[in-house]
Amino acid sequence: FASTGTIKLAVIPGDGIGQEVTAEALKVLEVASPAGVKFEQTRYDLGAERYLATGEVLPDSVLDEIRQHDAILLGAVGGKPNDPNLPPGILERGLLLKMRFALDHYVNLRPSRIFPGVPGPLASPGEVDFVVVREGTEGPYTGNGGALRVGTPHEIATEVSVNTAFGVERVVRDAFARAQRRPRKKLTLVHKTNVLVHAGSVWWRLFQEVGAEYPDVTTDYLHIDAATIFMTTDPSRFDVIVTDNLFGDIITDLAAAITGGIGLAASGNVNPDRTAPSMFEPVHGSAPDIAGQQKADPTAAILSAALLLDHLGFADAAASIEAAAVADIAERPAGSGPTGGRRTSEVGDAIAARVAG
Amino acid sequence: FASTGTIKLAVIPGDGIGQEVTAEALKVLEVASPAGVKFEQTRYDLGAERYLATGEVLPDSVLDEIRQHDAILLGAVGGKPNDPNLPPGILERGLLLKMRFALDHYVNLRPSRIFPGVPGPLASPGEVDFVVVREGTEGPYTGNGGALRVGTPHEIATEVSVNTAFGVERVVRDAFARAQRRPRKKLTLVHKTNVLVHAGSVWWRLFQEVGAEYPDVTTDYLHIDAATIFMTTDPSRFDVIVTDNLFGDIITDLAAAITGGIGLAASGNVNPDRTAPSMFEPVHGSAPDIAGQQKADPTAAILSAALLLDHLGFADAAASIEAAAVADIAERPAGSGPTGGRRTSEVGDAIAARVAG
Ligand SMILES: CC(C)[C@H](C(=O)O)[C@@H](O)C(=O)O
Ligand SMILES: CC(C)[C@H](C(=O)O)[C@@H](O)C(=O)O
Repeated sequence: FASTGTIKLAVIPGDGIGQEVTAEALKVLEVASPAGVKFEQTRYDLGAERYLATGEVLPDSVLDEIRQHDAILLGAVGGKPNDPNLPPGILERGLLLKMRFALDHYVNLRPSRIFPGVPGPLASPGEVDFVVVREGTEGPYTGNGGALRVGTPHEIATEVSVNTAFGVERVVRDAFARAQRRPRKKLTLVHKTNVLVHAGSVWWRLFQEVGAEYPDVTTDYLHIDAATIFMTTDPSRFDVIVTDNLFGDIITDLAAAITGGIGLAASGNVNPDRTAPSMFEPVHGSAPDIAGQQKADPTAAILSAALLLDHLGFADAAASIEAAAVADIAERPAGSGPTGGRRTSEVGDAIAARVAG
Repeated sequence: FASTGTIKLAVIPGDGIGQEVTAEALKVLEVASPAGVKFEQTRYDLGAERYLATGEVLPDSVLDEIRQHDAILLGAVGGKPNDPNLPPGILERGLLLKMRFALDHYVNLRPSRIFPGVPGPLASPGEVDFVVVREGTEGPYTGNGGALRVGTPHEIATEVSVNTAFGVERVVRDAFARAQRRPRKKLTLVHKTNVLVHAGSVWWRLFQEVGAEYPDVTTDYLHIDAATIFMTTDPSRFDVIVTDNLFGDIITDLAAAITGGIGLAASGNVNPDRTAPSMFEPVHGSAPDIAGQQKADPTAAILSAALLLDHLGFADAAASIEAAAVADIAERPAGSGPTGGRRTSEVGDAIAARVAG
């Protein structure tokens, strides 16, 4: 992949604090970029504001333009809670999920670690550093299913989880490859094979088949319910987790909670085959209650920019952002809140300065 | 319901520690029974052992016999992990789920509280006392779905979550009624309405419609992913939770984890219409590694017997068991392990003695 030259970056700051945290992520990205690499940015105003003003969520023409970029950086989308003009789920499905499906983001990558100095809910979590590889284009997220006799006492509604050998194998393969690159080389499959037997059996089969090609990777299996128990009682047991779209949604929010909150959780919606740009975004939402006040912690957005650099092949630049963020987090005074008592832009400045220096 | 006379109880001790904990639950049940009430027990040997010996899981004739009882007490079923003679999921589906569906256990009741003195993974959980009302007969647990081109690169496997207005309304109604009987009168719906729109919309609609009949119950909604966050960062916010079969499976294991482990978690598979007997069982499994050693904590089984008494209309007897268990738990010396350093039967004796006296 391009290691010099111009990188075309689609930037979707979105709503609320999305704007503020994206500004800081871009600030750090610029500083971290290797010599000879230039980020050419195109901004796309998408999200609740645009929808409320125009009725548009993600027009196909805009999606086509975005597709011409090398990567996408997104802040957060979402309007005020219970806004009667904003149908529930419209942005999630029309924008976020639409991009994941259209751009074939089949690896939804969510690293979780407990950063030194960050308070969390667990009394003694131990050392926690794992990554969840969540399938992003199948499972219960396909929108398949429907309803009959809607609104009557005889309504019946179905949701169809779709699981293909093609879709499962590629994400399982990606997860094995990631596990092999990590020191502990351990991969845990999370599913519910004892109840969801049809889907479970294709996941189980391909986990075994692909695993045979990675004899140096230790494997493990947990039902999703048991996985939530270990996530709170022994999270340090995890190295890489591979799981389905819905179980991944659940386990990564839980992972963010036990590692100190979604304010620090970064994610990548990755197309490993590079047939379309991958998208990087913090796990948190647009937090309209604190928007525009320079109160938001931009660290998750900044760490998402590091994932973006890593995906583009700039591993050293990514590592320098991560190290700077870790150092910044470690020096936030106890009890000073997520930003360590600073304005959003001051956090970005501080991390950028560490990267530069 | 019967408040004197003979109660016909089907007892399924099951495998491993199921045998030991059931003995203690029955011991306490006898002591707690109100004057004039007699439990007539029939034992059914079901579980891994029977399957391995005979190939039978739950013959229809046995199910028909069980159906003639007033209630069912189950210990735990399950053989040695990875026993090649025990196909994965066969007992879960052939025994546990078969009973839930056949006996229309549409309310899967799982109370969670942090008992004074019990160590748990959270640093400062606060006061925790909530109950999850998990739907037990629909959702992704129906076994609907299937697979094509199994074992090939073109396999496609589906799981169909089935949600009917009939099925959703009755469990939502039960949850509202329970919430109304509790001091805080608060009910939280947990779902994933922003993605699972078909199922989500029938759950959402009936939650609103039934809620209109319970104006004194405060309502709240959380997506399942956000619910796992609050479960670790602010579990005391929950009073009653109502949710679908799969989300309930996940959230109740997490609830058990944060309240000190599944060794204390009781559950009821309840048919509120009493068209068939309800079943009560600890949430934990058969723990073959410690079976037969009198090491298991019977408290969850004993608390399940309390739920059974409550369901049969003996609220005072149920409360006396609960109080005795709470008192016993509080006096277990710190660091002495789940049973407080006692044999399984000693824990049963101690709780029975408190109930008696
Ligand atoms: C917003 C929503 C559609 C999304 C999901 O469920 O995937 C979010 O929860 C996430 O995890 O990125
Ligand atoms: C054993 C299994 C089928 C069961 C379930 O998934 O419901 C268990 O996890 C439970 O929660 O009772």
